[in-house]
Amino acid sequence: MINWSNVDKVAKEWLKEAGKNIIASFKTALQIDTKADANDLVTNIDKEIEQYFINRIRETFPSHNILGEEGFGDEVESMDGVVWIIDPVDGTMNFVHQQRNFFISIGIFENGEGKLGYLYDVVHNELYYAKSGEGAFWDELRLPTLEKVEVSEAVIGLSASLLISSDPNNPFASIVKDVRGTRSYGSAALEFAYVATGRLDAYISKTLSPWDFAGGIIIVEEIGGVVTDFNGQPLNLLKKSPVIVAKPGLHETLIKQYFQVN
Amino acid sequence: MINWSNVDKVAKEWLKEAGKNIIASFKTALQIDTKADANDLVTNIDKEIEQYFINRIRETFPSHNILGEEGFGDEVESMDGVVWIIDPVDGTMNFVHQQRNFFISIGIFENGEGKLGYLYDVVHNELYYAKSGEGAFWDELRLPTLEKVEVSEAVIGLSASLLISSDPNNPFASIVKDVRGTRSYGSAALEFAYVATGRLDAYISKTLSPWDFAGGIIIVEEIGGVVTDFNGQPLNLLKKSPVIVAKPGLHETLIKQYFQVN
Repeated sequence: MINWSNVDKVAKEWLKEAGKNIIASFKTALQIDTKADANDLVTNIDKEIEQYFINRIRETFPSHNILGEEGFGDEVESMDGVVWIIDPVDGTMNFVHQQRNFFISIGIFENGEGKLGYLYDVVHNELYYAKSGEGAFWDELRLPTLEKVEVSEAVIGLSASLLISSDPNNPFASIVKDVRGTRSYGSAALEFAYVATGRLDAYISKTLSPWDFAGGIIIVEEIGGVVTDFNGQPLNLLKKSPVIVAKPGLHETLIKQYFQVN
Repeated sequence: MINWSNVDKVAKEWLKEAGKNIIASFKTALQIDTKADANDLVTNIDKEIEQYFINRIRETFPSHNILGEEGFGDEVESMDGVVWIIDPVDGTMNFVHQQRNFFISIGIFENGEGKLGYLYDVVHNELYYAKSGEGAFWDELRLPTLEKVEVSEAVIGLSASLLISSDPNNPFASIVKDVRGTRSYGSAALEFAYVATGRLDAYISKTLSPWDFAGGIIIVEEIGGVVTDFNGQPLNLLKKSPVIVAKPGLHETLIKQYFQVN
């Protein structure tokens, strides 16, 4: 029998300590690495912070499995048991270029079911989190249930790169034309946190990895938000996927009106 | 002879007090108005804050002219004498939808020459400002001179709506393909502040009004950034204009490579 309150307590302690380590690193020169290509920067901090969490988790909860972006965790091939899915620095390009607007993201699952979700805005020291069945929070503030909104009143997060397409029926172009406004922040965790707090009505991405959405999905679903792929199907927690996260009603409309038209 | 240090001192006091009034308003229900259309929201707070500045300026500096977004200022037809150009809430949609990511923007000019510029991030209590000839600052921190950067390494701010075009040679599409990344924040003042601090390398907008760029231009130019229209011409402080603000070198390349190709 897992004591989830205890897991929650230590996870929050580790997040705050990891955040302090990141802030302290700003005074030292960053060593920047390129991973896949120039658009996918990795710094030494990403690796150090992932290792920090892995060490703590293995010490405290030796039976838990860990899937981390930097690959220092376990070879996780199923969601059986307890699995931590970790992005030590979500928004690495922001981290490097802006020294703000990056998050630590953690989702903790038991047999595939979301239990605890955390999105930590390190620079602003703001923690968004949820305990499944007990609500979602922005620091001490309980987040209200997300309410329906019309497409024409919606402000949504999406990257301008989705508009680069020779397809005259590009669904993203239609969405941009129809909504009230768009934003792009360069961190999936930030955009999930913004949907959870109502600052964005939806967020759309063509490809996210499990560590990009694992923390956010638990928080957003806890307060009635809907997270699926572009076909309206649930996300696979072990695979890359297109992702649409939105307020109820708006989510259904976006899927029906822009992605199931053919 | 104008005592600019005194103008600077009171302007900062008024900014902080106006910011406190805005924060206090979050506890009351907002009355939302639509101005031109649904994309151009105006709240009662925009009007109140503009009126606040106008009252203070008229009382303290009766000879100064005031150009404000909400139209409570003077009919300013020339930049002769001292002119304050004020946007009481830059990023009104963010103000309404997010209760963050909006700024108070002020530029103070003497015979058309920028003297004092302010971009105030109310919620985060961060003030970006410049005194012409004496440097630009982010709170207590002096901002370094902006350095050259290549297009392929640049992160630039632009709205996804610029990509909605049937023109196969849309210059914004080419820019999005060539840069490292794009962001969109919905506040020109925020994006000018991000260019000033190096968090963005450039910001491009198809139309800004004088109050959208008046504060930012003074700050960015003070540290070597370049602000022009898409033809590389200086902005007219009394007219709407396309705007490109960028680090030196990058600005020249963007103009030459994407806007002067024909």
